[in-house]
Amino acid sequence: MYRDKIKVLDCTIRDGGLINNHDFDIEFVRKVYKAINASGVDYMEIGYKNSKNLFSSKEYGLWKFCDDDQIKRVIEGIKARTKISVMVDVGRVDMDGIKPKKQSPVDMMRTAAYVKDIDKAIFMTNHFKQKGYETTINIMAVSRNMGSELDDALAQIESECSVDVVYIVDSFGALYQEPVELLVKKFCSILKTKEVGFHGHNHQQLAFGNTIEAIMHNANYLDATVYGIGRAAGNCPLELLVGFLKNPKFDIRPILDLISNEFIPLREKIEWGYIIPYAISGMMNEHPRDAMALRKTGDKENYREFYESLTNTGID
Amino acid sequence: MYRDKIKVLDCTIRDGGLINNHDFDIEFVRKVYKAINASGVDYMEIGYKNSKNLFSSKEYGLWKFCDDDQIKRVIEGIKARTKISVMVDVGRVDMDGIKPKKQSPVDMMRTAAYVKDIDKAIFMTNHFKQKGYETTINIMAVSRNMGSELDDALAQIESECSVDVVYIVDSFGALYQEPVELLVKKFCSILKTKEVGFHGHNHQQLAFGNTIEAIMHNANYLDATVYGIGRAAGNCPLELLVGFLKNPKFDIRPILDLISNEFIPLREKIEWGYIIPYAISGMMNEHPRDAMALRKTGDKENYREFYESLTNTGID
Repeated sequence: MYRDKIKVLDCTIRDGGLINNHDFDIEFVRKVYKAINASGVDYMEIGYKNSKNLFSSKEYGLWKFCDDDQIKRVIEGIKARTKISVMVDVGRVDMDGIKPKKQSPVDMMRTAAYVKDIDKAIFMTNHFKQKGYETTINIMAVSRNMGSELDDALAQIESECSVDVVYIVDSFGALYQEPVELLVKKFCSILKTKEVGFHGHNHQQLAFGNTIEAIMHNANYLDATVYGIGRAAGNCPLELLVGFLKNPKFDIRPILDLISNEFIPLREKIEWGYIIPYAISGMMNEHPRDAMALRKTGDKENYREFYESLTNTGID
Repeated sequence: MYRDKIKVLDCTIRDGGLINNHDFDIEFVRKVYKAINASGVDYMEIGYKNSKNLFSSKEYGLWKFCDDDQIKRVIEGIKARTKISVMVDVGRVDMDGIKPKKQSPVDMMRTAAYVKDIDKAIFMTNHFKQKGYETTINIMAVSRNMGSELDDALAQIESECSVDVVYIVDSFGALYQEPVELLVKKFCSILKTKEVGFHGHNHQQLAFGNTIEAIMHNANYLDATVYGIGRAAGNCPLELLVGFLKNPKFDIRPILDLISNEFIPLREKIEWGYIIPYAISGMMNEHPRDAMALRKTGDKENYREFYESLTNTGID
């Protein structure tokens, strides 16, 4: 599949950071940046911009805050092709602390929001846009809210927001191809002046397949991570996506080296990937938080009890 | 997705046997059969019927040969809902050794063949059909042969063969959704009097997604394995497929128990699943045999060299 408008965003450090409190050391992040840059991937998302008034830097690593100075240490001396992205959550960022783009190593600000918070996301995004950044709004947990409230949110974005890209985020890894097709078509039809993006989760081994589905229906911004790292089951594996896209600007080999040298050892230390309680969460269209909690207990392979705990929810 | 005609075939022991020389002990196979039976899955494929003149029973386990007496030991005393299937390869079976269905515990005979061997597969299948079995022809490595030769083979099956089901087999895990759609439509349009089946391989994490794609375009026979066990990256995980199909006849819980109790420990002993050299084989539309060989060497995580060895094939 070759389409010139397609952009790939690697969110290895950002989504991977959700499983280690964003505590990757600078040298590791530099290695990832070097490989992503050498592979020709368009963007690399390096973490969240969170307010230090809300989160302690003793509890979290550097990439919970993404200070410009730390980002500069990562990219210093590397001839940059890959742009830098950071994510912000509604209500967790110190807006005045965001410098104008010209004074920052960051190229793109991505605002993650639920449908209910779309007003705030629009306000924030317009602010980032005024400061000169590329912008996205990433609508989380879409699988729980695919009806008229979503339509209204998209219409509001189209009319009130200068955002460049609006993402469908399958936070729970619950979407199959048919709802992905419906969602991408809906987004494209309402957001006539924006690009559409897709961010999959791999709870049911569908992150890559759903990303292909999104591409087929004209989503042009695609998230992926090295070796699929990310919260719970993780994300669409970058190496598979690059293998699928036939754009000659991409080179898979630096990503393969990075997996060989860094991600195989890392997977021994922290857990992500195809794990049954995450698959069950996906089937049930539930947040993986209960499954993540289960994986820290001695009962972590007791799937039946976990399954029944979810199916019985809400039944008296 | 609910469609009454959909049948699920578990080939855990048959395809899983390709990674341990078919050497599962009777007690393990009985546990699998009990769970599959309790889950309401339609068929369980227990192995291959190979001639003992061609393969040594010292070198291979019971499920390379599938003697009727051994199958009886597996199912004895279990109230059967799930039918038993065995697979035969063209040229490897002693046709006269196959008893009439009425004298055998086997319900379905599946013949695996490449397009070039379709004449032989038709001959064998008609023979099995005469003996009273349900039958399938499983066309292997379809990703390498999707053109007119395949069309001719399908037309020949339609006109000369009494087979019940013809399977698309993505042996190399190379198919994306679009070719799956094209193939299922092609099979359905030529094989007007047969059912169409799909057997995916998971090299690129697409076995489940492609199976959904096949369902959407009217394939009704679907292969899967417990926890995705199978050669190289394995197959479509049965637990995901059962979770997707909303047919109330299925119960996922016995499969979850089986994974908890048997397949998590088994995975520590034998390897299958998402492993980069298999992903590379899939991208390159190559048989995984080179990747399987690599995994037995000290170089098993040297992905770049493996990738380059495949990309340079045939270049002087």
